[in-house]
Amino acid sequence: MRLAHTSSFRSHTPMRAAVRNLTPSLIREVANAGLGRDDVLPFWFGESDEVTPAFIREAAIASLERGETFYAHNLGLPELREAIAQYMSRLHPLVGVERIAVTAGGVNGLMIAMQALVDPGDEVVVLTPVWPNLTAQPLILGARLRCVPLVPAGEGGAQWQLDLDALCAAVTPATRLLVLNSPNNPTGWTLTAQEQQRLLEHCRRTGTWILADEVYERLYFCDDTATGAAPSFLDVAAPDDRLVVVHSFSKSFLMTGWRLGWLVLPAELTEQVGKLIEFNTSCNSVFTQRAGVVALQRTAEVTPRVVAHLRACRDALVPQLAALPGVHVAPAPGGMYAFFRIDGHGDSLAVAKRLVAEAGLGLAPGAAFAAESSAWLRWCFASRDISRLGEGVQRLAGWLGVR
Amino acid sequence: MRLAHTSSFRSHTPMRAAVRNLTPSLIREVANAGLGRDDVLPFWFGESDEVTPAFIREAAIASLERGETFYAHNLGLPELREAIAQYMSRLHPLVGVERIAVTAGGVNGLMIAMQALVDPGDEVVVLTPVWPNLTAQPLILGARLRCVPLVPAGEGGAQWQLDLDALCAAVTPATRLLVLNSPNNPTGWTLTAQEQQRLLEHCRRTGTWILADEVYERLYFCDDTATGAAPSFLDVAAPDDRLVVVHSFSKSFLMTGWRLGWLVLPAELTEQVGKLIEFNTSCNSVFTQRAGVVALQRTAEVTPRVVAHLRACRDALVPQLAALPGVHVAPAPGGMYAFFRIDGHGDSLAVAKRLVAEAGLGLAPGAAFAAESSAWLRWCFASRDISRLGEGVQRLAGWLGVR
Repeated sequence: MRLAHTSSFRSHTPMRAAVRNLTPSLIREVANAGLGRDDVLPFWFGESDEVTPAFIREAAIASLERGETFYAHNLGLPELREAIAQYMSRLHPLVGVERIAVTAGGVNGLMIAMQALVDPGDEVVVLTPVWPNLTAQPLILGARLRCVPLVPAGEGGAQWQLDLDALCAAVTPATRLLVLNSPNNPTGWTLTAQEQQRLLEHCRRTGTWILADEVYERLYFCDDTATGAAPSFLDVAAPDDRLVVVHSFSKSFLMTGWRLGWLVLPAELTEQVGKLIEFNTSCNSVFTQRAGVVALQRTAEVTPRVVAHLRACRDALVPQLAALPGVHVAPAPGGMYAFFRIDGHGDSLAVAKRLVAEAGLGLAPGAAFAAESSAWLRWCFASRDISRLGEGVQRLAGWLGVR
Repeated sequence: MRLAHTSSFRSHTPMRAAVRNLTPSLIREVANAGLGRDDVLPFWFGESDEVTPAFIREAAIASLERGETFYAHNLGLPELREAIAQYMSRLHPLVGVERIAVTAGGVNGLMIAMQALVDPGDEVVVLTPVWPNLTAQPLILGARLRCVPLVPAGEGGAQWQLDLDALCAAVTPATRLLVLNSPNNPTGWTLTAQEQQRLLEHCRRTGTWILADEVYERLYFCDDTATGAAPSFLDVAAPDDRLVVVHSFSKSFLMTGWRLGWLVLPAELTEQVGKLIEFNTSCNSVFTQRAGVVALQRTAEVTPRVVAHLRACRDALVPQLAALPGVHVAPAPGGMYAFFRIDGHGDSLAVAKRLVAEAGLGLAPGAAFAAESSAWLRWCFASRDISRLGEGVQRLAGWLGVR
């Protein structure tokens, strides 16, 4: 006998409130407002519009032609882990291969790291504004989220800065995990080595793990480090510190769509993380990993060019934006975003939707990243054609009536 | 000043005990015992030794050549979701595209479904023996795990069967989720439509979600269903029942290494699952998804041949195994495994390691799947060359001294 059932019967066990309550992507909400329109200049997503270099794609194609279509190691192909360890060791103090785990992208690496470290009910401190995945993941795992905001400073409050004392005050022995993204999406704010050192010492005292999302480390424009990369926690930490660093092939190698990243772990965590990879995705495709090996072997053919171009993009965009009356923006030390606000336009979600509809300009609303940045807009300047950035500024100027 | 720190200082906040306590893969423990040996016949992993068909690989290659290397939709390419919905609707009552979410493999689909449904502390009932990922995932999410065993029955106890009354007694209003894998890895046991109907009715009464891992549905050898596929919960449930069905391209399309799967959801969950995909992996590679579209469009060129071959493998292996004195085995109705036990050899992990070392035969230990199957061995019969199965039986016979 099949029971009759009513919606009230069915709804007494809905899905988790913790998941229903997660904010859907406000960036996608804006982008959806432009669906079907080919006259929008899209600067909303954090992605270059340049295809992955041919020599990287060819490595995957050759692997597929060889028939490498079987399961692979949980932690990644040994040769990829070795190539990552060597790449990391060129940028930072020696990183052994036993500290490397390959993941299905940076976001997946973050999720796995949080699964390794965060029990339900644990306190997780996240520095904001930040891309929303970093605040969503602890909530999915049942953790208690505590956000500490960066502070607008400088001319027009356009340069976000860390209040280190406030952050240290928030991280107590009750804090299981501190999550930091530097260079930061969306603000471009970047930790200094001195700040990293002080945070590390503080977290050693409180027993807090640090999860450092450093996927933008190569996208750094300050010429004040020996390698050109942004300051990293790997430069100040010991190999067995409570530190997990997350990386991705997406930004430095133009490989967003490949879903390939890695974790740098204390060695004692690696085997445990291998179990979590087994239970989350089992492994990455061999052909994707072959592409990663080649990208690392031939980094010089892609990353320096990408970084120089992004710097030119930033230096083209920011002065034009800053020249608009009422616009407050500062050049970001790192990342691929201009983060700015416009006097008299405090509702970024509404403004971003209007800009799509009325000006054909696609930006990300600051509300996507934190309450304190809800008046801000994020502009991804990773545009192959730099002139498109100027065209975008003209559209914004026209919309503001200052053309 | 850099603080001195001792290991005792550092270890007061280790990683989660819930993760440390997860059993590492016993199958890999056995396989590791054969590392570096090329004289082992490997039947330990759940994977065919046949490369993905060329026409599927070519679709991914063409996508890579076109430069499809960017981020894609959280829920999957619209054309892949549509192809999946059509494929599912050929096997089952109409499944709308709004119920489909593409995941990074079946295992990732299971993890995402559990994240959607299971709060920390919730009770999850899992039917065992089962592949260990299904019991590990609830523990990672902080749930309470309750295992209900299948019961050995038939000649020599070799045919595992469901005690439906015992399972229904275990699933109470306190049970958030019931997890079932049918056709079952490792036993081959397969739910009947009548059992599915009764379980569905029971779970409607208790308000329990059903998570059905049906990745082996095409690998079914009983000729008692209209489509040839195994009975599915999709055949008995309403579209808005509390049911999530997990599928994979791995087994039916020889695509294990591609990490591509999907969920069939109640439509009201789909958008929520899209958020979880964003926060777990963001999306699947477009080139991988293009391969999935072609696999579904040209299913007839691969799946029937794979299923017929697996049936021939089963029918070659099982009688030879059954003919060995002291070996108890029955032909599995579905899946790709022979699950058997040997009188006088009750420690499957030790036996599996000895078989590798002393006979060059690679099997999976039943202890990997449940305590109640710790005397059993799993033999994956997905061998392109059927004669290798006979060679394996000879090695087993020799090791048993009955050659």
